[in-house]
Amino acid sequence: MRVRYKPWAEDYLKSHPEIVDMDGAHAGKISDWFEKEQPIYIEIGSGKGQFITTLAEQHPEINFISMEREKSVMVNVLQKVFDLGLTNIKLICNDAIELNEYFKDEEVSRIYLNFSDPWPKKRHAKRRLTYHTYLARYKQILKKDGEIHFKTDNRGLFAYSLESMSQFGMYFTKMNLNLHEEDIEENIVTEYEKKFSEKGSRIYRMEAKFHE
Amino acid sequence: MRVRYKPWAEDYLKSHPEIVDMDGAHAGKISDWFEKEQPIYIEIGSGKGQFITTLAEQHPEINFISMEREKSVMVNVLQKVFDLGLTNIKLICNDAIELNEYFKDEEVSRIYLNFSDPWPKKRHAKRRLTYHTYLARYKQILKKDGEIHFKTDNRGLFAYSLESMSQFGMYFTKMNLNLHEEDIEENIVTEYEKKFSEKGSRIYRMEAKFHE
Repeated sequence: MRVRYKPWAEDYLKSHPEIVDMDGAHAGKISDWFEKEQPIYIEIGSGKGQFITTLAEQHPEINFISMEREKSVMVNVLQKVFDLGLTNIKLICNDAIELNEYFKDEEVSRIYLNFSDPWPKKRHAKRRLTYHTYLARYKQILKKDGEIHFKTDNRGLFAYSLESMSQFGMYFTKMNLNLHEEDIEENIVTEYEKKFSEKGSRIYRMEAKFHE
Repeated sequence: MRVRYKPWAEDYLKSHPEIVDMDGAHAGKISDWFEKEQPIYIEIGSGKGQFITTLAEQHPEINFISMEREKSVMVNVLQKVFDLGLTNIKLICNDAIELNEYFKDEEVSRIYLNFSDPWPKKRHAKRRLTYHTYLARYKQILKKDGEIHFKTDNRGLFAYSLESMSQFGMYFTKMNLNLHEEDIEENIVTEYEKKFSEKGSRIYRMEAKFHE
């Protein structure tokens, strides 16, 4: 997601260390950071934060982590956390490739990838969040039966991900090649998703797990 | 594919045992049936036969098998074999579930599934050609590096097949979620495919292999 650069973002984020980890302070002890010990769901790349904050509000029995590289994006998430008064969500400001610096092996129950950057050029394939180097990180931190939930409006990224994930030894459940034409309970539709769907773009969605 | 019942089909097919196997006469010795020993590609469900006969004409270096249950359908394929004077294609009149009665283990290089019956009702899932019982047969007769090439205009069948095949331990290459919007070399467009594509239906295509 492209956003305007916000020069004040870093200071703002740093002034809320109880919610935002800017420097790895909670690396290896994420569970201790939350009030309650409960399952952990991560979203990688949270955009304006509508998806994960809505989910966190609906599911107080889950601990949520929003992992986002861009400080100017992350401030939007933090603002929503305050607006909704959420206590079951924390923010990590870093690239997903560093996931296993923060999480112990098999600590995480679910990872959400929503409308990730498609990096359409072949030479940028390494940067796609379903490139095998990322999948290896996910596999390490996910519980044995952990899930990846993937949603995108980008056909190329979806097709690529089906190849990459299956080649890495993953399998799919709840495959949906036109989400808004089928009734799915509990789909949280963000502004971004609504905009693209109304423009006539299909939304693709699947859930995936690792073969043991 | 629905076709008109042809009462004369059985006699016509039986009168050409050099091309059509109606009773398992070549079971276990398919390779001996062909003039030359070369790789074997199978199409399961050949409709009017346009795809496989075009391919057989383009690839004299491959031995082709059309496997089709319906006699009234199979006569169309046989007619095209005669029209084109093809010697590298044989027809088996039987259900795909009997594949391993005909083929030895690891004898086949490729299987084509084109516009297979989607069997949309859940209680008919067992009849879909990508149901796990069929996949087990394919795995048995395919060479270690053998491929399944799958093409359909049916979104539900494609989504189901991605789930079923990945759950069975298959992986995908050449995933295409809108075939006619991307340039694919060597795509053989049958009348059926042309009709649906012109009506605005997407054509989905992928190639798949088994993890070892």
